Amino acid sequence: MTIWCNADLSAEALAELRAGLGHHGLVIPAVRTGNLSSAGADPELETADIAFGQPDPQQVASLPGLRWVHLTSAGYTRYDNDVCRAALAARGAVMTNSSSVYDEPCAQHLLAFMLAEARELPGALEQRGTWSYAQHRSQTRILQGDKVLILGYGAIGKRLAELLAPFNVEIVALRRRVRGDEPVPTFAISELNRFLGGSDHVVNILPANSETGKLVDGGFWAKAKEGVRFYNVGRGTTVDQEALAEALRSGRVARAFLDVADPEPLPADHFLWSTPNCHITPHIAGGRQEEDPTLVRHFLANLKRFEAEQELVDRIS
Amino acid sequence: MTIWCNADLSAEALAELRAGLGHHGLVIPAVRTGNLSSAGADPELETADIAFGQPDPQQVASLPGLRWVHLTSAGYTRYDNDVCRAALAARGAVMTNSSSVYDEPCAQHLLAFMLAEARELPGALEQRGTWSYAQHRSQTRILQGDKVLILGYGAIGKRLAELLAPFNVEIVALRRRVRGDEPVPTFAISELNRFLGGSDHVVNILPANSETGKLVDGGFWAKAKEGVRFYNVGRGTTVDQEALAEALRSGRVARAFLDVADPEPLPADHFLWSTPNCHITPHIAGGRQEEDPTLVRHFLANLKRFEAEQELVDRIS
Repeated sequence: MTIWCNADLSAEALAELRAGLGHHGLVIPAVRTGNLSSAGADPELETADIAFGQPDPQQVASLPGLRWVHLTSAGYTRYDNDVCRAALAARGAVMTNSSSVYDEPCAQHLLAFMLAEARELPGALEQRGTWSYAQHRSQTRILQGDKVLILGYGAIGKRLAELLAPFNVEIVALRRRVRGDEPVPTFAISELNRFLGGSDHVVNILPANSETGKLVDGGFWAKAKEGVRFYNVGRGTTVDQEALAEALRSGRVARAFLDVADPEPLPADHFLWSTPNCHITPHIAGGRQEEDPTLVRHFLANLKRFEAEQELVDRIS
Repeated sequence: MTIWCNADLSAEALAELRAGLGHHGLVIPAVRTGNLSSAGADPELETADIAFGQPDPQQVASLPGLRWVHLTSAGYTRYDNDVCRAALAARGAVMTNSSSVYDEPCAQHLLAFMLAEARELPGALEQRGTWSYAQHRSQTRILQGDKVLILGYGAIGKRLAELLAPFNVEIVALRRRVRGDEPVPTFAISELNRFLGGSDHVVNILPANSETGKLVDGGFWAKAKEGVRFYNVGRGTTVDQEALAEALRSGRVARAFLDVADPEPLPADHFLWSTPNCHITPHIAGGRQEEDPTLVRHFLANLKRFEAEQELVDRIS
């Protein structure tokens, strides 16, 4: 088979990919991409059986020979539409993502945010030279007994709930389609109003799609608990950033930790940088040691399953 | 009975103490103290049955009428000597501390440090205005598989091990006296060299006593793993700070998170403030919402046990 790969992998990871492919052919286009964007249609994709990376969505839909697309991201907004899904289904092709690679770091990043918030780390660590004991100690908290609302429950939310288990917090999750087998109480996103007013922490893991655009808006904060804490590792487009800044200025939201923004990169003069109690990391929640080799190993393990006609891991279409 | 209290409690907590004491008398000296120091001998202590706060250690040893001392701290270095212990034992008096109040926040603070380290929070949060994706993302880690060495295993270490349970790390603990019933593999501190070279994280919860002074010195780092991470919520005096700074400058220690230092407050011109990869919070690890009322409730619950001649919680002598 011919495997096309436009992921901008490290030399080490690319070597591991080549070695792992064995007798299969590898095609690498001239223009490679990061994990969040596409470089547009590529003529070399036309001869491939498998695409590994971020292929152009329209081209994916149009190529009858392409049997499997494995994305190097967890997000798949650009492929999350009826045209793409129908085209793949019509020819028995499948799509998988790299969710398993990113779930663990994203869940750990969220808990890092929650504990940094509770333990007053941003203010305390930035002091450098002043020992502001009373000021910072009075702001510290423990998480026990808090109510945590997870927006967009999937593998990351499931793992976060596991990491939070020893803390004795109350967790409620909202998701697009409730399956009924979730290990925490889970409801449809339409029931948001039932839970928003009682939550101390709102954890946003929402993907970008037609239902989630600016879901977290001014009306959302009007219904939320005064002094709520907000964390976002989903997508920046799910948040009305002006409304969030206003809620932070008024104290309605006590503190926000954002790993995603709209746009990315966030311009140097963007108002979020100077909004009080707004803490930003530059889309690193999915990062981990050996990220590229881990992406390659995840793909190669799925390739073995594909060859054996077994069910693929992280199938999304 | 007469209860003497020199703790510098909030008005709210003091009111709760008064209400909770019922028919017992409360004596409050003119000079009140924080939780880490003593104001010296106080004549009013002479008539008390119970001391709640930070009484003078020499005076505690000399007063035959004092039947119970309940400290508002977890640390008890100044009372941790043969003179004080023997004097209390000779008259059947007991001493307790507020360990139960501080274990949970200290354990959460340690995990906050470990996750802030793994998720590159200090560098990423301080950027403000630059979206340094590649720089920071390449530094992120997940904790899975790491080896964690806990120095000074007690209630805080036990709780930290519980919080770390979902992370699949390997934990080894060292303590002064191994009891054999610890839920993680635990060894005498004299066996440090067996474990130091293999540990990715060194968590210091050591109290200050005659055996722990500058235990973490240059020789310690020479035997540690290159790039080890260090966290300290024990006492600053257990660390040779010059040696730590040198190990951070050389990269032998990748990053240090300190909540304690020697002296405290750490002077504005102290070299630790400008040591690379050295992150400091001002002795806030034990902080929690309602800290003072929680101290009072812990004392009042123990007072009920004292009246009923039951075993006291957090007994240290």
